[in-house]
Amino acid sequence: MKNNLLEKREDGRSGSDLREISFERGYTCYAEGSCLVSFGKTKVLCNVSVEEKVPPFLRGSGSGWITAEYSLLPRSTSTRVPRDISKGRLNGRSSEIQRLIGRSLRAAVDLEQLGERTLWVDCDVIQADGGTRTAAITGGFVAVVDALRYLWRSGKVGVIPLRSHVAAVSVGTVKGRLLSDLCYQEDSHADVDMNVVMDGNGNYIEIQGTGENGVFSKGELQDMLSLAANSIEKLVALQENALDMDGEELEALASS
Amino acid sequence: MKNNLLEKREDGRSGSDLREISFERGYTCYAEGSCLVSFGKTKVLCNVSVEEKVPPFLRGSGSGWITAEYSLLPRSTSTRVPRDISKGRLNGRSSEIQRLIGRSLRAAVDLEQLGERTLWVDCDVIQADGGTRTAAITGGFVAVVDALRYLWRSGKVGVIPLRSHVAAVSVGTVKGRLLSDLCYQEDSHADVDMNVVMDGNGNYIEIQGTGENGVFSKGELQDMLSLAANSIEKLVALQENALDMDGEELEALASS
Amino acid sequence: MKNNLLEKREDGRSGSDLREISFERGYTCYAEGSCLVSFGKTKVLCNVSVEEKVPPFLRGSGSGWITAEYSLLPRSTSTRVPRDISKGRLNGRSSEIQRLIGRSLRAAVDLEQLGERTLWVDCDVIQADGGTRTAAITGGFVAVVDALRYLWRSGKVGVIPLRSHVAAVSVGTVKGRLLSDLCYQEDSHADVDMNVVMDGNGNYIEIQGTGENGVFSKGELQDMLSLAANSIEKLVALQENALDMDGEELEALASS
Amino acid sequence: MKNNLLEKREDGRSGSDLREISFERGYTCYAEGSCLVSFGKTKVLCNVSVEEKVPPFLRGSGSGWITAEYSLLPRSTSTRVPRDISKGRLNGRSSEIQRLIGRSLRAAVDLEQLGERTLWVDCDVIQADGGTRTAAITGGFVAVVDALRYLWRSGKVGVIPLRSHVAAVSVGTVKGRLLSDLCYQEDSHADVDMNVVMDGNGNYIEIQGTGENGVFSKGELQDMLSLAANSIEKLVALQENALDMDGEELEALASS
Amino acid sequence: MKNNLLEKREDGRSGSDLREISFERGYTCYAEGSCLVSFGKTKVLCNVSVEEKVPPFLRGSGSGWITAEYSLLPRSTSTRVPRDISKGRLNGRSSEIQRLIGRSLRAAVDLEQLGERTLWVDCDVIQADGGTRTAAITGGFVAVVDALRYLWRSGKVGVIPLRSHVAAVSVGTVKGRLLSDLCYQEDSHADVDMNVVMDGNGNYIEIQGTGENGVFSKGELQDMLSLAANSIEKLVALQENALDMDGEELEALASS
Amino acid sequence: MKNNLLEKREDGRSGSDLREISFERGYTCYAEGSCLVSFGKTKVLCNVSVEEKVPPFLRGSGSGWITAEYSLLPRSTSTRVPRDISKGRLNGRSSEIQRLIGRSLRAAVDLEQLGERTLWVDCDVIQADGGTRTAAITGGFVAVVDALRYLWRSGKVGVIPLRSHVAAVSVGTVKGRLLSDLCYQEDSHADVDMNVVMDGNGNYIEIQGTGENGVFSKGELQDMLSLAANSIEKLVALQENALDMDGEELEALASS
Repeated sequence: MKNNLLEKREDGRSGSDLREISFERGYTCYAEGSCLVSFGKTKVLCNVSVEEKVPPFLRGSGSGWITAEYSLLPRSTSTRVPRDISKGRLNGRSSEIQRLIGRSLRAAVDLEQLGERTLWVDCDVIQADGGTRTAAITGGFVAVVDALRYLWRSGKVGVIPLRSHVAAVSVGTVKGRLLSDLCYQEDSHADVDMNVVMDGNGNYIEIQGTGENGVFSKGELQDMLSLAANSIEKLVALQENALDMDGEELEALASS
Repeated sequence: MKNNLLEKREDGRSGSDLREISFERGYTCYAEGSCLVSFGKTKVLCNVSVEEKVPPFLRGSGSGWITAEYSLLPRSTSTRVPRDISKGRLNGRSSEIQRLIGRSLRAAVDLEQLGERTLWVDCDVIQADGGTRTAAITGGFVAVVDALRYLWRSGKVGVIPLRSHVAAVSVGTVKGRLLSDLCYQEDSHADVDMNVVMDGNGNYIEIQGTGENGVFSKGELQDMLSLAANSIEKLVALQENALDMDGEELEALASS
Repeated sequence: MKNNLLEKREDGRSGSDLREISFERGYTCYAEGSCLVSFGKTKVLCNVSVEEKVPPFLRGSGSGWITAEYSLLPRSTSTRVPRDISKGRLNGRSSEIQRLIGRSLRAAVDLEQLGERTLWVDCDVIQADGGTRTAAITGGFVAVVDALRYLWRSGKVGVIPLRSHVAAVSVGTVKGRLLSDLCYQEDSHADVDMNVVMDGNGNYIEIQGTGENGVFSKGELQDMLSLAANSIEKLVALQENALDMDGEELEALASS
Repeated sequence: MKNNLLEKREDGRSGSDLREISFERGYTCYAEGSCLVSFGKTKVLCNVSVEEKVPPFLRGSGSGWITAEYSLLPRSTSTRVPRDISKGRLNGRSSEIQRLIGRSLRAAVDLEQLGERTLWVDCDVIQADGGTRTAAITGGFVAVVDALRYLWRSGKVGVIPLRSHVAAVSVGTVKGRLLSDLCYQEDSHADVDMNVVMDGNGNYIEIQGTGENGVFSKGELQDMLSLAANSIEKLVALQENALDMDGEELEALASS
Repeated sequence: MKNNLLEKREDGRSGSDLREISFERGYTCYAEGSCLVSFGKTKVLCNVSVEEKVPPFLRGSGSGWITAEYSLLPRSTSTRVPRDISKGRLNGRSSEIQRLIGRSLRAAVDLEQLGERTLWVDCDVIQADGGTRTAAITGGFVAVVDALRYLWRSGKVGVIPLRSHVAAVSVGTVKGRLLSDLCYQEDSHADVDMNVVMDGNGNYIEIQGTGENGVFSKGELQDMLSLAANSIEKLVALQENALDMDGEELEALASS
Repeated sequence: MKNNLLEKREDGRSGSDLREISFERGYTCYAEGSCLVSFGKTKVLCNVSVEEKVPPFLRGSGSGWITAEYSLLPRSTSTRVPRDISKGRLNGRSSEIQRLIGRSLRAAVDLEQLGERTLWVDCDVIQADGGTRTAAITGGFVAVVDALRYLWRSGKVGVIPLRSHVAAVSVGTVKGRLLSDLCYQEDSHADVDMNVVMDGNGNYIEIQGTGENGVFSKGELQDMLSLAANSIEKLVALQENALDMDGEELEALASS
């Protein structure tokens, strides 16, 4: 499969190319961290709010918490989707995605050093063209770092309690071709769809692979894992660039 | 009260000045009409979706419908507000506002000429600094017009079924001063708060005045009504400019 | 428009006549204040309950609170309406109305003097023939006063913490005629529908005007405001009569 | 136990006396049958609505249906009870009571002769002083009969499809005394509480006996059943009187 | 009616025979009391959990509480029933049944001696062939006793706070025959259906009789009561046998 | 890590041993397929119901569907968990698990050959000691096959529309040791937790790996994947044995 990675896709990308990625920091003005992340036409607004308390199971533990919520705006998709509230319940897909985002971003932060406070990461999808959950994790990371910088600048934490970068990408096979960062059109024709979350050191945080339309072999799995690792390396570099930390901040990081 | 309209407010405006108003059309790519409206720091994304059916009470009537939904993103405000779904129900304020938006925008459109279809107007507040409902109406109008143009261009309606502009503004009195387009800080200190919706001909569509903190006299009411009319005239001009209709479209309008 | 105020309506009233108004105080036996108010065939049971605590945002403030709930009995209307609970949520209209009732009645009471307690005003519509919200406000006022008298008689407050009467009326235009206190039949044909809440001194508390079926001009607005003021003056007199305060009570009022 | 039936209770009744019973027919104007029933201070508004369709399980069967809903107004009781909707669900007690009312009233009517229509019996408790469910059944019967008369008068049914009277009473033992038609004060001290629903011929429709505070013997059971039968006989006579049928109606009944 | 009690039913039982009854104690391993009870094909898993607190209305009273929850597994019945959660609310029948189970089992226990703790009795129907509520009470009793023994063995209570056995059975008439312990097929054709809950001394705890399909006479009632008493005597003996208490436990009981 | 696979765990297993696995087919009598699966103390009741229709998105497609629901009985765990319905919503974890079960089992069946019908797979956890989702998939497969055999025996499908076995296992690392089929105690101390679903030919259907407590390296991932493949091979053999197909059935399979 690998040898066709150079063939062009509909939007001109090779199989291993990411879409155009951007991080617009400070997109809204009240959140302690705010980032509008774009993976091509997929746009997710990630706002991080600091709350000075933790859920009951952590009270008195000295440790902090990160929780995420994920929602599609009704017309973020090509057909309008009704709001959760009009059905009276959170849909299963959203619930699953926001649990994934929360777990992934908790891996990025030293929760002990964060102290007894909660970061709420609100991921609202403004426009959806596939890969919204991986965009939310990758952009959510940037907003989380800005919230940590805010805490550090305001003297609430002594160091910037970051453990590592966290980024995510979807990979999959479509009609026998191995592709990275699938757009909606590709995703809806994928035989296998895999979301991979990794840290900045090439370790895994989460792997979720699904044979949407049948099963996948051990060889296909290995190919997808390699491609994902390669794509995440690129995303980490883009995050680093967007975060644009100054020397003082890097030192505050180093001590953590 | 009127004579102090020229005194400066905290942000440098006179009492009768509007904040900086902008309409970013085509903000998202799937909606038939999409507009990010800004009234200063208040930013509302208005997406209009066309659905080719009407609610039960209009089936077979030949007439169309416009309905609105309104929601605050959790961190659109200075303190995070929980999502409706986390409480299991739409909050009363949102419900009231979306009914107001729906009524106001229905006044803008000739529903008979629209035919048996529904326009869903989703107003999602990205950032809230007072006046979100009036921004939603004013920007929702622009998105509705774009959806009507889309219907006309695609031949689904023979004319652009617009009756008139619709715009809205909040006016109020704060410590004895009469102010237009209140920001959140002003609004939270207002003695009287009034939302006025008018058409492009100086007629009223909706008036909602509340003595938040006591009562208001007949004189105060008249002053507020004048200021509102003046502000709405400006908003209509700004809408017209943003809509930037070409000759063919204006003609399609004229015939309606 | 005004000159046709003397023409008879279907039920024999002139345009400016109110329907037959009555206040049946002490309609139920447990509530601290209870009043069955009738505006013609519209009948609303207003029960006021005193709770010796306030919502979280007022705790420790020394100030009291008034909150209202509004509900239609299922067969208060000509066609049975399902209960809210059978749909699992409060309907939008009820939510909007009960917020209006609460705001209006809070304007009647000196909340500081009330002290840290809440008045719950339950407005249950027994029979609905238009104008249920204005009847609820006007009758709710009477029940609130009785609850205040109860508090004063039982020594819980040193004065009767009343600021002013509060009464409400609907006015509107139907086929070009200006009408006060619209019954359901008139209301459903109204071009403009306006609810006005005023105090006993001719000041406004709340104005809500809606062009149900189009727009309304500045002239029409002024006519409706005059008619409303005139009608509310009558309602205040009727309330005063129904309340039938004795000298001691009037004095307790005076000192407030 | 029986021999103390003549001793006076707090309100002056003997053990076997009912409270003052009244049926106010036509209490509201829209319902096809409407009755405000009073058992002393317990007041229940029973409104019957005719719907020209049946639940899915009866469609095409030719048979009709009767269903009931039961609700306490918030301040019908000495302490305000929150509305079901504020908790988001029907409480268990209300659900149980409305199922009982529905079953009981279905026994009164020949559902085949009723035809494919549903009677909705809304029982709203205006004031509660014990025995609300038995009052609702007894008064609901009167409202159902009026709805059947309405159907017959309007020619929708050829006969008045009534099978028998239905009435209900609570009996119980309080500190060793056998009492009928318990008020709230008595009910809350009852050792045994029994609700009995019977027809006009002395047959049982429903028996629900509960040892609230321990158990009850076979002898106690027999005493309670006798007292209930005696009380229901009185209630049936009062219903008959209230219904005040004319000769034509009695004949329409006879033919059924 | 009695004389046909010896005729065989479809499954070979006489009218007064119970189905095969079994109690499988310790069916699950975590609950303080656990019993899978079978009445023929009806199987209910009763798990009792001890919680070291009581509902608000008992706090500080020194008294304990027993509460029950009842639910059908979706395919416990011949046609799959949707889960409550898929409709968003507990169905009325389940709510009514779990209230009955709770009341019945509270009669078995000396709540003062239980102390301020709650027994949660979860009755989950694995397979339903009629009589699930009576099986739940009868088997729930066994699980409650095991939870009480656990509390006594672990020294949390000084005696086993049992007042009496509690067992329940359904009786009814089907086509004129008097039957005990009706299976679903019989139950669905019953003219009268009666659930009787009694203690080990022949006293009543609860009686619920319903004329499902018409009314029932005094004679029928007496026959059903006799048959129920006879059946419950058998169930109590079976419970005693299943509980298999040793001498020490019987003594701990005796002292209570 | 692999070399410590032979060391004993607390329950005497080596790292690669499964717990005692059993499949009790026909556990309940109404479901078309029913299997109580045990993975040690973890017991899940899997009932499959056939419904002769499909969800809207498949109507007219000729293709069938499989959907799953998953729920914990309240006292399946060491501490009682409240029912979903008492909170009014399905919890996020259950929702995520039932989506996984549904996807996994759909991979086992030829949905075209199944025809326009739905298999509902209800997985109710009777007792939970870790690995409930993998037990539900593995046991659910057995119940699904029995439902397919039922359809084939009753002539509703011409072949048994099975594509392959589907089984699942959890693997993970606990304090540096690689373990298969983790019990709750192990799972709660796992650094990495991975659920793997495979078919009978060694292909993947779903992989979900989570660094619960940090991250995991590429080497660890490969070790876990090998162990999972090995365990699933054993589970498939056990399923085959439990299913005990006769020659006729195997032939019906072969033709599919």
